[in-house]
Amino acid sequence: MRNYAALTEIHRELYRLRHAEAILSWDDAVMMPVGGGVARAEALSTLRCLIQRHATQPHMADLFAGAADESGQLPAWDQANLREMRREWMRATALPQSLVEAMSRAESHSEQAWRRLRSANDFAAYLPLFRDVVRLKQEVARALGEKLGLSPYEALLDAFEPGLRVAQITPLFERLRAWLPAAIATTMARQEKEGVVTCAGPYAVERQRELGIEMMHRLGFDFRRGRLDTSHHPFCGGVPEDVRITTRYSSDNFLSALYGVIHECGHARYQQHLPQRWLGLPVAEPRGACIHESQSLLMEMHVGKSRAFLTFAAPMVAAAFPELAAAEPEAFTPVHVLRQLGRVRPTLIRIEADELTYPCHIILRFELETGLIDGSLRPEDLPDAWDMGMRQMLGLTTRGNDRDGCMQDAHWPGGMFGYFPSYALGVLAAAQFFRAAKQACAGLMDQIACGNFAALDAWLDQHVWSQGSFLSSSELIESATGARLSTEAFEEHVERRYVQGEV
Amino acid sequence: MRNYAALTEIHRELYRLRHAEAILSWDDAVMMPVGGGVARAEALSTLRCLIQRHATQPHMADLFAGAADESGQLPAWDQANLREMRREWMRATALPQSLVEAMSRAESHSEQAWRRLRSANDFAAYLPLFRDVVRLKQEVARALGEKLGLSPYEALLDAFEPGLRVAQITPLFERLRAWLPAAIATTMARQEKEGVVTCAGPYAVERQRELGIEMMHRLGFDFRRGRLDTSHHPFCGGVPEDVRITTRYSSDNFLSALYGVIHECGHARYQQHLPQRWLGLPVAEPRGACIHESQSLLMEMHVGKSRAFLTFAAPMVAAAFPELAAAEPEAFTPVHVLRQLGRVRPTLIRIEADELTYPCHIILRFELETGLIDGSLRPEDLPDAWDMGMRQMLGLTTRGNDRDGCMQDAHWPGGMFGYFPSYALGVLAAAQFFRAAKQACAGLMDQIACGNFAALDAWLDQHVWSQGSFLSSSELIESATGARLSTEAFEEHVERRYVQGEV
Repeated sequence: MRNYAALTEIHRELYRLRHAEAILSWDDAVMMPVGGGVARAEALSTLRCLIQRHATQPHMADLFAGAADESGQLPAWDQANLREMRREWMRATALPQSLVEAMSRAESHSEQAWRRLRSANDFAAYLPLFRDVVRLKQEVARALGEKLGLSPYEALLDAFEPGLRVAQITPLFERLRAWLPAAIATTMARQEKEGVVTCAGPYAVERQRELGIEMMHRLGFDFRRGRLDTSHHPFCGGVPEDVRITTRYSSDNFLSALYGVIHECGHARYQQHLPQRWLGLPVAEPRGACIHESQSLLMEMHVGKSRAFLTFAAPMVAAAFPELAAAEPEAFTPVHVLRQLGRVRPTLIRIEADELTYPCHIILRFELETGLIDGSLRPEDLPDAWDMGMRQMLGLTTRGNDRDGCMQDAHWPGGMFGYFPSYALGVLAAAQFFRAAKQACAGLMDQIACGNFAALDAWLDQHVWSQGSFLSSSELIESATGARLSTEAFEEHVERRYVQGEV
Repeated sequence: MRNYAALTEIHRELYRLRHAEAILSWDDAVMMPVGGGVARAEALSTLRCLIQRHATQPHMADLFAGAADESGQLPAWDQANLREMRREWMRATALPQSLVEAMSRAESHSEQAWRRLRSANDFAAYLPLFRDVVRLKQEVARALGEKLGLSPYEALLDAFEPGLRVAQITPLFERLRAWLPAAIATTMARQEKEGVVTCAGPYAVERQRELGIEMMHRLGFDFRRGRLDTSHHPFCGGVPEDVRITTRYSSDNFLSALYGVIHECGHARYQQHLPQRWLGLPVAEPRGACIHESQSLLMEMHVGKSRAFLTFAAPMVAAAFPELAAAEPEAFTPVHVLRQLGRVRPTLIRIEADELTYPCHIILRFELETGLIDGSLRPEDLPDAWDMGMRQMLGLTTRGNDRDGCMQDAHWPGGMFGYFPSYALGVLAAAQFFRAAKQACAGLMDQIACGNFAALDAWLDQHVWSQGSFLSSSELIESATGARLSTEAFEEHVERRYVQGEV
């Protein structure tokens, strides 16, 4: 076991260095004043180089060769850990150090500029930085693809969702594309006749923050090992021992901040419940992005937007804004909150999109990012391509409004290509997991109506959270739900909640 | 110049890695939830090891040998930079890696435990962690001393104030010890007859925070490159490009938070004005701890507690708390704020101590920490020794109150031994610098009375801030003030402000 043990020691050190990287990245987005950006970019770049160097020490090739011989005597979790270490090492050694360094620097500069220039709606000023990111990412994708025997784009996909291929995505997305438009049209027509009472606020930010924290407590977020803060774009960062989620506030609407919190809390619950005794090793990492997204969407869409959940949550909201609730009581009843939450209406902003139009946003990004990576779409043509896609799919234009168009997400500015498909696969997985949990746990919705998440948490913990990266995503989904990933559970859910309008 | 250039490249990388360390340490004290502590301690320890390894690469011995030959052709600042790089390397190579790692881990655990156990006033629970820190620090001091040809304690001193020896501290502290008691007694007797109108608040924390931020703006703190936050113990952290100061709030008193801000702002102004074109190299680092402390004390004591400063600051305070100022207007006049600020009264807490009794706190700590390091004082005997020292010097007891006794400072829990003398030397240097600035800048106090710090800043920038580590501390003090460090300017200042009671 000498070789395997030496490899785990290297990975424990990597874990600790990545802790530093994760906290610095969080700080960058949440705390850092703008003038600190250049020095931070340099510091992160140096740290990442160092991590890269540490993850690619020349003697690791011998250690992996030796560990392969030891593998037969290892317990199952150690075998899975070895497999994950090897996967990571294969990816890490595919790239020359100079490329890793250049990529990291370009991403950091681009992300910082994007934060400023998105507010200024200035794609032209951002373009040179974005070009650098795309150009370097193409280079990265080619180098990775050659090493791993994948197409360049699939080599990027594989970073987030091991084993995922374009051939698996395409039929699922085609089915959604074929089936969604009718569902959207029927739902919108039905909703036209439905009255929704809302209250325009103002919702004091401090009260919204307190409500978010109260909700996080109810959802089992462990504040001894995490925080809630504010950032331009909600995210879940930090490390499993200190999970940091963010949201953003709008004073005319409590739903966006609150459901940002619920969504990120879904990610955070997963992080906080990863297998404790394996923490520090790759087998304890969350299984790819699709599973991670399924956890946030399960909380946001299947739990958070259910009648049961609102039975306990709507009174919490009313109690947080007593003056508004007194003035407009109907707006704070479960039925009207649900109608507002369930409203289907094409929007420009992905993270504000409803459940039905959301997959359209993803399909657009998938098409555009495959184009950016294979070079068929030039960075300077992105605003037009985006606008055209939005017009075709959702009948909306982003011409002259790149802030709400191609500049809306932090992903590409930070060099994250190949991640978006996971969101839509996460949509499907969330529906499939939740259906399985309801089948397994009698009275689940009644418990949720009392704000009791014990049975749901136990099911998720057993089938998803505690599994870390022990299984592949496909194995995990099949072992938890008894079936391969399909659009079926999602279609059932949409049919019931949207087409039929059952709340 | 090949060797020198290679050394500067290594130091630029070190600077970037220390950026990571600085931000993680700040986060640790300001943001981190308690449950993140163990993982953070591990991460910091690994990062510090890695920095240590980077700073002691075997080929650096050859590079330094080669650079010594190149030195004659280097410009003066590069020569100073080489001297500082070499000094750092000598210290870094004095310790075995295993000792550095053990020390870092012990310090991190001890500091985290201290934060919790200080509130609980539980020295007994803290003792095992403190013992580890002291034991390892003795080992560190011995190893460093052997390498540098210094006594163990002087080897620690030298880390913070290069070149400082016990033989220089002793006569200055003896003079203070001989001269302060009479000054304290006279002042207290005089002040007994002096009426001070105060207002007990409550001072809302948010208003205090806003007042602190307004004051920082007035003092020229650059918020594009820094922040203000809250922590248990005020400090100035971060990096020169992103300087992060903290304070703490008490609702019955605005002075402690505000003067915490002014003090830390003194540190921050120094950090933000270090020589920009040399940033990233050792010659741009702040000159030792005595100079750093002189900058904070100059702002807090000589500027902040002057009649001139209160002429513009007292109305700012009154405007921040209009209801209180309306109810008790006299309490917000310069004279009464100055009397409150100038009040001499022995206290248990160093950072709340007045200017006159403050050096007594330092002399006690100096005596105790030399004892802890040479082994003549055992960690378990610290509470008693502290109590005895406080009784002898200030007539106060800390028996059963270690929270306000030997557990009050973050220094020892974090392994910082050898730093305290710099506070008292900083007291002397602050007085000497400020006297020189007043002599050089006609009408300085009139400008300060208008909230105009331009002339003071220009003098400090020219003589201190922009000098980085180009000169030694003694050279810097002599070149700026025309004299070696002595107690003279401080005695003049005390005589005028306290003994005579001139406001």
